[in-house]
Amino acid sequence: MTAMSKERDRRRQDPYPSRLPEEHWLPRQDRVVWSQWRPDAPLTAQQADQFDRDGFLILKDIFTAEEVEALKAESAAMRNGERDLMDGSVITEPGSDEVRTIFKLPEQSSLFNRLASDRRVAGIARFLLGDEVYIHQSRLNYKPGFTGKEFYWHSDFETWHAEDGMPRMRAVSASLLLTDNDAMNGPLMLMPGSHKQFIACAGETPDDNHKSSLKKQEVGVPSHEALGKLASEHGITAATGKAGTLVLFDCNTIHGSNGNITPFPRSNAFFVFNAVSNRLEEPYGAKKARPDFLAERGDPTPVEIKTGKLA
Amino acid sequence: MTAMSKERDRRRQDPYPSRLPEEHWLPRQDRVVWSQWRPDAPLTAQQADQFDRDGFLILKDIFTAEEVEALKAESAAMRNGERDLMDGSVITEPGSDEVRTIFKLPEQSSLFNRLASDRRVAGIARFLLGDEVYIHQSRLNYKPGFTGKEFYWHSDFETWHAEDGMPRMRAVSASLLLTDNDAMNGPLMLMPGSHKQFIACAGETPDDNHKSSLKKQEVGVPSHEALGKLASEHGITAATGKAGTLVLFDCNTIHGSNGNITPFPRSNAFFVFNAVSNRLEEPYGAKKARPDFLAERGDPTPVEIKTGKLA
Repeated sequence: MTAMSKERDRRRQDPYPSRLPEEHWLPRQDRVVWSQWRPDAPLTAQQADQFDRDGFLILKDIFTAEEVEALKAESAAMRNGERDLMDGSVITEPGSDEVRTIFKLPEQSSLFNRLASDRRVAGIARFLLGDEVYIHQSRLNYKPGFTGKEFYWHSDFETWHAEDGMPRMRAVSASLLLTDNDAMNGPLMLMPGSHKQFIACAGETPDDNHKSSLKKQEVGVPSHEALGKLASEHGITAATGKAGTLVLFDCNTIHGSNGNITPFPRSNAFFVFNAVSNRLEEPYGAKKARPDFLAERGDPTPVEIKTGKLA
Repeated sequence: MTAMSKERDRRRQDPYPSRLPEEHWLPRQDRVVWSQWRPDAPLTAQQADQFDRDGFLILKDIFTAEEVEALKAESAAMRNGERDLMDGSVITEPGSDEVRTIFKLPEQSSLFNRLASDRRVAGIARFLLGDEVYIHQSRLNYKPGFTGKEFYWHSDFETWHAEDGMPRMRAVSASLLLTDNDAMNGPLMLMPGSHKQFIACAGETPDDNHKSSLKKQEVGVPSHEALGKLASEHGITAATGKAGTLVLFDCNTIHGSNGNITPFPRSNAFFVFNAVSNRLEEPYGAKKARPDFLAERGDPTPVEIKTGKLA
């Protein structure tokens, strides 16, 4: 078998083909919660069931006020130019110089590295994915007040599979709120239950799609019809809560956020954990893999879980 | 005294000068609730006090399900092209042909004319303003799902005074929700208490400002600093509720709305009532008055209040 026919074979056997001429709904082929619940799990049995059913979980008051303050201060220092940041790791708001995203968070901050390793974050991810986990992507998000732009509905897995070569649905995102988020300042919105099917999106991936999709995604998004159907069936939940709230969501849960004209900014620290057994291959729906600040392609380094206070 | 010196005199005595080089905060010179409360008033004493304090009031379940259905059907018929509409009375969504606004609502629909005259709408306006009332402006608003754009913070009175020549703060808006509005589909947001000061906005009015300001307002809006101060002091309330909910707000209450990526559209019928004693003069902060679909400039015709079912 030549390399080319091997690659054709791999793509033919792909359970989640996307970026084809038509949109398709396909059933999920993977579990959502990969571990059997046990009393020493980092979630209650009810929380694990809820994650399985809804595709997300909102955890309040799991960090102390001191921990949250330390994380907020660290975030401010990184955004305000008090730290040297790696080239190419910063994305600005469309039409302004304001910092919207800083990638490679644990690599650039020991406190965020500690957070990412915590049992309350990575420990839950390891439990949900039933495997050792590594960080697929990490970032600090900041959506300013007054002019924060919307982020349109999408499944992360659709992009990670098509553009990064993530084989299966065995990854979970953890978003730690660093500002108080109410329903008015553009919170993350999720469609509960949407993770149970794969919406294969229509349209070929443009070259270097990520250069525009990080500001405004246009390929790899479900149709209005599909989104209307999902929202009518399942509704939409806003992930609101005080700073320190942790939002965990499955890689295939459809989510997005509205813009924000309120004076109140929105910020979070965001980590994607992937199972080490689910490491990246070649992209399934793009010619070239995305750069490594978006998708860790090296040998997976399992996160060593830490317990106790962050700082 | 020449006409020109009379006009200079009028502008010099203006208690609400705006569109000057600098932003200014000025105290409100007018009452908010102009009638003494009596048991036969169309609001309870508590509701009247609340309007006085917050600058708005949200009334639920004052229309029957049949009335709401009839208004929704009428709205759909007007938007879907089943009715002939007056030239220049329709505004479309930026970047699409979808109908965003239809002006001159009572003139184009007998049902909406009846609604505007109802004791539950015009009757409350007459009570709040302590005078006979006429319709200064009316419109049907439709903000589509998925692509609904934001509308930035502003005081209506600032524009009506500067661009339409409304002398004093003695007008009230009534918005009847025609869709269920939750916090996620871009509801009207109001800053309670903001009506108690006048924020004179910086910057000269461009000629024909309304042609762009109806899609995106850029002159006549408070600074980030002013909005941040108001929101920190008073907070922000989202006017949410089921279809049929009536939102009344003072002409000087700062309000706006976020965009809407949810599949759920947002629609309302909107009437501005002005006291007949407060009829329009020449604009206080613009060279030319706006067209009459935005501001009724003829002899005020007092609304004849009707009671009983709408339809």
